[in-house]
Amino acid sequence: MPEPKNAAFDARSFIREKRDGARHAPGAVRDFVRAFTDGSVPDYQVAAWLMAVFFRGLEGDETFELTDAMLRSGEVIAFEGLPAPTVDKHSTGGVGDKISLPLAPLVAACGACVPMISGRGLGHTGGTLDKLEAIPGFNPKLSVADFKRIVRELGLAFGGQTAQLAPADGKLYALRDVTATVECIPLIIASILSKKYASGTDAVVFDVKTGRGAFMRERADARRLAEGLIAVSKRMGKRATALVTNMDQPLGFAIGNALEVAESLDVLKGGGPADVRELTLALAGEMLVLAGVSKDAAAARTSAEAALASGAALEKFRQVAKAQGGDVAALDDPSRLAQTPHVEAVPAPAAGFVVAIDAYALGELIVHLGGGRARKEDTVDPAVGVVLAKKVGDSVAAGEPLAHAHVRTPGQADAVRTIAAAYRIEPGAPAPAALVLERLA
Amino acid sequence: MPEPKNAAFDARSFIREKRDGARHAPGAVRDFVRAFTDGSVPDYQVAAWLMAVFFRGLEGDETFELTDAMLRSGEVIAFEGLPAPTVDKHSTGGVGDKISLPLAPLVAACGACVPMISGRGLGHTGGTLDKLEAIPGFNPKLSVADFKRIVRELGLAFGGQTAQLAPADGKLYALRDVTATVECIPLIIASILSKKYASGTDAVVFDVKTGRGAFMRERADARRLAEGLIAVSKRMGKRATALVTNMDQPLGFAIGNALEVAESLDVLKGGGPADVRELTLALAGEMLVLAGVSKDAAAARTSAEAALASGAALEKFRQVAKAQGGDVAALDDPSRLAQTPHVEAVPAPAAGFVVAIDAYALGELIVHLGGGRARKEDTVDPAVGVVLAKKVGDSVAAGEPLAHAHVRTPGQADAVRTIAAAYRIEPGAPAPAALVLERLA
Repeated sequence: MPEPKNAAFDARSFIREKRDGARHAPGAVRDFVRAFTDGSVPDYQVAAWLMAVFFRGLEGDETFELTDAMLRSGEVIAFEGLPAPTVDKHSTGGVGDKISLPLAPLVAACGACVPMISGRGLGHTGGTLDKLEAIPGFNPKLSVADFKRIVRELGLAFGGQTAQLAPADGKLYALRDVTATVECIPLIIASILSKKYASGTDAVVFDVKTGRGAFMRERADARRLAEGLIAVSKRMGKRATALVTNMDQPLGFAIGNALEVAESLDVLKGGGPADVRELTLALAGEMLVLAGVSKDAAAARTSAEAALASGAALEKFRQVAKAQGGDVAALDDPSRLAQTPHVEAVPAPAAGFVVAIDAYALGELIVHLGGGRARKEDTVDPAVGVVLAKKVGDSVAAGEPLAHAHVRTPGQADAVRTIAAAYRIEPGAPAPAALVLERLA
Repeated sequence: MPEPKNAAFDARSFIREKRDGARHAPGAVRDFVRAFTDGSVPDYQVAAWLMAVFFRGLEGDETFELTDAMLRSGEVIAFEGLPAPTVDKHSTGGVGDKISLPLAPLVAACGACVPMISGRGLGHTGGTLDKLEAIPGFNPKLSVADFKRIVRELGLAFGGQTAQLAPADGKLYALRDVTATVECIPLIIASILSKKYASGTDAVVFDVKTGRGAFMRERADARRLAEGLIAVSKRMGKRATALVTNMDQPLGFAIGNALEVAESLDVLKGGGPADVRELTLALAGEMLVLAGVSKDAAAARTSAEAALASGAALEKFRQVAKAQGGDVAALDDPSRLAQTPHVEAVPAPAAGFVVAIDAYALGELIVHLGGGRARKEDTVDPAVGVVLAKKVGDSVAAGEPLAHAHVRTPGQADAVRTIAAAYRIEPGAPAPAALVLERLA
């Protein structure tokens, strides 16, 4: 049934209410979403409200209503006849964050169903869809019917945001992007959750990143975001937990789409960088307990470690990749993934210990090299990237490689300089930093 | 020379700067005005900036730049060959505020040139143009050429805002109106001054109203507005002073367009309500000194009182009305102005002293009766209105008329009730309240 045109919505009073710090009456935010979706409230009034929200915030009730109204603005996927409960993961975005690639098949291999909806990279952060497309032939642009079918058959599908899911969020986000109202926690919550729960999942673990390479640089902001994501999820009848995790230095060694696919395969084969493996297991544990597949965290850990060791998780990834058109041979032999003709070493300027690696600077470098997006409409080069040789806490000799830049043209003195500058090397070893800073439930 | 299309203006960064409380770099506000005037910055980005300004304010430099850029967005009237310096008055709007009608001819009769640009009523406040149009035939929609000619010939013309004067302000104001960003002092300053100084005046006295019937209800806000108006005027090379005046009760006895014309004629004939006469003389004194026509306030007062007593001010009004097409017979015999068929008395519910009259409630009543505008496109009925019989401080017997409602249909119990409710009557006399609260220069 089409929504009635809401010509009577008094947008000016609605804006003034928020401007003056009042709480909107129940139903008002829902009416507003309907009115801007059907075009009866023009963009300039929406923009003024967004900026008022930036300054005044939204209460929990208002954030819930915004989320729910945006969710209902489009198709809401409903699964029937699945063999197991659904669970998904959402990361707020980081540098080298390829966790979805090993995590989703691992959790599916352990018996949960993972209808995973991911995004593309924007700015300094990468995106799961771009990484998956570095596998030749892999198609993450599934129709809703195919997405549901593959989840039903394999317990996992990798889909992307479509115009059918939460279109009001798409419209609102586009406006936030050009009106400097992206950085606003209640709006971020509503945007994440409306899309996430339109994809039909019953439970979500949130990986809320904080530090240099995260959108929430401050730990307190990350915690507020995590708390809000959980609170609104519960109001929507969903199960949710969150880990606040460290994003000061990049995750793992590899940054860049094909390089991160290769590193993800290492984890699925039981190896991989310690931090990527550890975060994958931590998030898998949350998901398996949320889905009710494992009775507690210890059982989930045992189950997940076994699925890595047995090759079951890797096999699940192969099956899903094949079902989505991916070249399985490239998974078995990652040297078949896209590669750059040139690899430049970045020598350490001095001996000492690595005390910091600026994830933000390296994320921006990837964009500069063509492996990320400055604007949504940019295409990405899957091959370019950086592979770190040293991470925080490692000792290094002068001249020893800190990292290697995978580049299209030889030389690239700029890239080498940028990478060297991202490293801070000091004589003394740094105090060890935790990867998972906090768990919220 | 047409301005170049400013496609390169980075509106998102500009909005973010203000959102985060930064001061815009010199020239940035000017570039912004140019970009929104030529349409290269869309309304939704302007709206977001306006709301950020509501919360963060503008510094003096920024307000000056906004004012100057809006002023230069259209025609700037330049007078040549005038017999005397120019001076104008601007009121921030009130109820029963017909001061421009006696004031402008009085000042012109004393030897200054008054190129007066006025507005229409909106909401609870009346507008000078609506009052002038209550004089049959009076045309305030002058071309710039006619406006200049009549000022040159008679020392006074009454004009209205046109699309040629400060069009950027017109565009910005329309957007502020629908985005709840009208009530913002630096934006109010830029709007008032860009229009005012586009009309070619060299000096302005500001009548900044405060109290129940004013836009600035708080005295501190009125003072801030007055200070800002003077400071930015000086930056623009203009002479300016301000009076902060009381708008708790209506000015004079008459509210409603034709009724206020009649009351203005009383003042021009040397009579009229004490408060209207007093404020007219106070503002005339400021204007004559600002114009350099009188050497000080005492001399200005003597000159203005003489021009009322001699009939010179009234004669100037007759000449200007005639030059602008007005029916002079209606000035000589105000019973020829529009009248309603019914006049309803409002009896006092109890004996005592009038301690307050809610100007805002009476202003809203005029709109309700058809004598004002709820929306810009409304037309007004010149005849309807209220004539107060009692003002604050007056004693009243039970049943004695407080006021009379001039209405189109008999009965009008609602209007009578509203007027009675606007009066507060108490047993004791109130402390006398000053009309001019403060002078700023």
